[in-house]
Amino acid sequence: MRRPVNGRPGAPPQGPREAPWVALEEHQRRLADVRMTDLFAGDPGRFERYSFRVADILVDFSKHRITDETLELLLDLARAAGVAETRDAMFAGQPINVSEDRAVMHMALRNRSERPMPVDGQDVMPQVRGVLDHMRRFSEGVRAGRWRGYSGERITDVVNIGIGGSHLGPQMVVRALRPYADGPKLHFVSNVDGAAIHDTLEGLDPATTLFLVASKTFTTLETMTNARTARQWLVRAAGDEGAVAQHFAALSTNLDAVAEFGIDEENAFAFWDWVGGRYSLWSAIGLSIAVAVGFERFEELLTGAYEVDEHFRLTPLRANVPVLMGLLNVWYGNFFGAETWAILPYDESLTYLPSYLQQASMESNGKSVTRSMQPVTWQTGPVVWGQPGTDGQHAFYQLLHQGTKLVPADFIVPAQAQHPLKEHHDILLANFLAQTEALMLGRSVEEADTPAKSFPGNRPTTSIVLPRLTPRTLGSLVALYEHSIFTQGVIWDVNSFDQMGVELGKELAEKLVPEVQRGAPEEGAHDGSTAGLLRAIADMRGRS
Amino acid sequence: MRRPVNGRPGAPPQGPREAPWVALEEHQRRLADVRMTDLFAGDPGRFERYSFRVADILVDFSKHRITDETLELLLDLARAAGVAETRDAMFAGQPINVSEDRAVMHMALRNRSERPMPVDGQDVMPQVRGVLDHMRRFSEGVRAGRWRGYSGERITDVVNIGIGGSHLGPQMVVRALRPYADGPKLHFVSNVDGAAIHDTLEGLDPATTLFLVASKTFTTLETMTNARTARQWLVRAAGDEGAVAQHFAALSTNLDAVAEFGIDEENAFAFWDWVGGRYSLWSAIGLSIAVAVGFERFEELLTGAYEVDEHFRLTPLRANVPVLMGLLNVWYGNFFGAETWAILPYDESLTYLPSYLQQASMESNGKSVTRSMQPVTWQTGPVVWGQPGTDGQHAFYQLLHQGTKLVPADFIVPAQAQHPLKEHHDILLANFLAQTEALMLGRSVEEADTPAKSFPGNRPTTSIVLPRLTPRTLGSLVALYEHSIFTQGVIWDVNSFDQMGVELGKELAEKLVPEVQRGAPEEGAHDGSTAGLLRAIADMRGRS
Repeated sequence: MRRPVNGRPGAPPQGPREAPWVALEEHQRRLADVRMTDLFAGDPGRFERYSFRVADILVDFSKHRITDETLELLLDLARAAGVAETRDAMFAGQPINVSEDRAVMHMALRNRSERPMPVDGQDVMPQVRGVLDHMRRFSEGVRAGRWRGYSGERITDVVNIGIGGSHLGPQMVVRALRPYADGPKLHFVSNVDGAAIHDTLEGLDPATTLFLVASKTFTTLETMTNARTARQWLVRAAGDEGAVAQHFAALSTNLDAVAEFGIDEENAFAFWDWVGGRYSLWSAIGLSIAVAVGFERFEELLTGAYEVDEHFRLTPLRANVPVLMGLLNVWYGNFFGAETWAILPYDESLTYLPSYLQQASMESNGKSVTRSMQPVTWQTGPVVWGQPGTDGQHAFYQLLHQGTKLVPADFIVPAQAQHPLKEHHDILLANFLAQTEALMLGRSVEEADTPAKSFPGNRPTTSIVLPRLTPRTLGSLVALYEHSIFTQGVIWDVNSFDQMGVELGKELAEKLVPEVQRGAPEEGAHDGSTAGLLRAIADMRGRS
Repeated sequence: MRRPVNGRPGAPPQGPREAPWVALEEHQRRLADVRMTDLFAGDPGRFERYSFRVADILVDFSKHRITDETLELLLDLARAAGVAETRDAMFAGQPINVSEDRAVMHMALRNRSERPMPVDGQDVMPQVRGVLDHMRRFSEGVRAGRWRGYSGERITDVVNIGIGGSHLGPQMVVRALRPYADGPKLHFVSNVDGAAIHDTLEGLDPATTLFLVASKTFTTLETMTNARTARQWLVRAAGDEGAVAQHFAALSTNLDAVAEFGIDEENAFAFWDWVGGRYSLWSAIGLSIAVAVGFERFEELLTGAYEVDEHFRLTPLRANVPVLMGLLNVWYGNFFGAETWAILPYDESLTYLPSYLQQASMESNGKSVTRSMQPVTWQTGPVVWGQPGTDGQHAFYQLLHQGTKLVPADFIVPAQAQHPLKEHHDILLANFLAQTEALMLGRSVEEADTPAKSFPGNRPTTSIVLPRLTPRTLGSLVALYEHSIFTQGVIWDVNSFDQMGVELGKELAEKLVPEVQRGAPEEGAHDGSTAGLLRAIADMRGRS
């Protein structure tokens, strides 16, 4: 099904991708009416053949609208697109982020082996180990109470101030690992909306609060606005600008700006341009994780990701789990016309995982130009969305079951709970199984007593079962998605590692700030709506 | 653009909707290449003509890909579909929920006039006022400390236990109105995942905690599992089953089950079958709101919604804001092929609004059969998703700007902040304006220094500006969406008021619970994947 792209007719990619692409289009037409239930009925080995184990995680692809032929054709496409070669180029430190001429080497951050990780021919592991050691010393100092605030008290609360990649990863992991939390209490402030920092500070004591300011450039508007407000709050309480050094650390490379803010250079943590924001939780950006659960747990997180890195690097495409995950996204997005992909964790602790993966995927693959700067004529990245399991069942699953749209979904569940309430977990697991089963089975009009109670079924899902949600399995889970997103980007021939699409809005916002402040648009600078809204807002603010 | 529907080719509705539908398809082809910036350039009055005020809220439709002709054609479709007549039938208490043969009368809950609201010819206002009075007495008693726990202490914490419609509304409103919170601290437990109730109870004192159990039937599996766990926790601490009456109230109509649980009949709040779960925050389900911010504030919330009800009921379609909102959903969903709609509040307090509207919309209109039980051949409800403003800019806006998918979006902002940090709010407002402007403007390849920095633009947005986020404006905002969703349902000819799509999964889950408990699937009862997953999970649990 060829959908239009940015108003132009859809078309397959030219070059080596074209033949497998067209073959997949033909194959999709043949498979469009085939029901998964029939595929299971005709093939007792289907589950075993289409489910995989990677780093203790079970990933089941058997409830997808695929046959061996589908997989072969998708793998042909992966080969034509050069998935293995691009992966190898990434691991070799080549500048695969072509628009910014940078390597992509977040895997070095979690490399638990002695293998060197080269960027521009230089092994980055000594630097990586240096920063890890710095993080260990810092986090242990805070946790052990050796770090003291201006009044000599130990730190009870840590506020991570960052946005986007400097926020979503740490927030997601700290929430997911709450059962392991034994350090100071963590808080996260990201939105420039003053309510965020205001409400957070309200509950805190300046004397025992430590701020981690996460901004690579130390100029991010939202983050620095929040950091300045936090700084004022602290200095007002301490009565001394010097207190800033005892209450702030920076995750940044702009050492001049960090020093000017009043942060001790010793408490600035380094970054590298081969770590993209949305791949940075493994770096110093993860400092809040180490503070919350301890550095050993943070290292276990890295180990879990490393295990998947090795799987991704070394496993043939046919059994390479993140590659297959990525190919299924392509299958539904480009051949069934699906626009979205749902992430449905059956685990309250994974509340923030959908938002995290939303950024990871949409910022990576929401692109319209190829790596050689041509407009794409095919669909690229999906809208990724979702909410935890049983809540979603009582909210939006109605549409998944009976709506007109095909929404492929990932169901994620831990076999063992982190709490002692066994009855709850049995019910949770039963719901997890029941939903993937119901989405596939459907119910015909004949079986239902009214057409309103019939279900089309044949809706595809991936089941991902963790033995238990631990730092290690969480690290593996996230790395699986990272490499799936990578695979999709290679197939779509987009650069998954830049984010030029955020620039225009930033530029316009900077221009608009003074206009908002004075309550009047600059003459002729805006369309009628933007100017009109600006005036109406000024009018409403005057009414206060 | 006709998209396939559940595997069958798309086609316009038959009957009176067909002619305007086909006219809209033709009109869309003529308008497909027209840029909004040109429409603004050629029409200085565009903003004034396409922006509306309703209940103090400014709603701007001028950044949509519409002309006067588009609106006329969409209004033709609305007339052909009988939007006004169905609306009037709803307000007249006719059973427009056809599959369940029920009236739809949540507007009665917020009717602030003396006008009777009939259901089956009987005015329901006396009952409504009775329950409101009950809510007033109860909430004031708890807030004033007249309600006492088993040890004679007053209540400091209230836990709302519910799911879906008994959770999302109260949670969203209590979070949004945090600046007004002056009662006990509110907590929400919905997910059956034991982590939810476990983590919540961990921080609470049984002697000062009150539970509100919200389940119409008092049999909802998730809610009753959580309620029983809370009950055990309380009884263990109090050492007396009798304490249940002092610590539990019920929002339910199943009085027998309520009494058996140990709840005093006096603390059971009534419900009616003409209030759907996703329209129930205005009913006794909103009790937690009244406890958190006071009954007067709850009444202001009702008043705000009432004002929009009156606007919806009395305004001609052409200037009827929720009708226009709904028609724009139809415009992009059925004629541009958009699958999703984004809700982007520039207000941290509205964090839960996207999830709330996700249920409101997707459970209402994620349907595939018409009101006369025929399969639809056109797309129905969109996937609704979103996150608060500036956070989203650093996460998924990349795809909105440069992806291949058309994602219409609602931008929502309060002109005035609820906090004293003016600089933050200026920046927030500038970002709000800049994003809608950037999405429309785009940037051509010629203007950009590289194609990677070009933006297609012409992406449609609705701007919704509240003077301030108050109980009243929040009530208005939610009612606008309710009636927009109603309008969409009428156009699509679906019953927006049932949710049969949740039944199959529920049935299968009930069967699966004993299988999960014993760790083995029933012979021949499941497909290979469901059986295989069940065994794998049992194996992983054995490892503990």
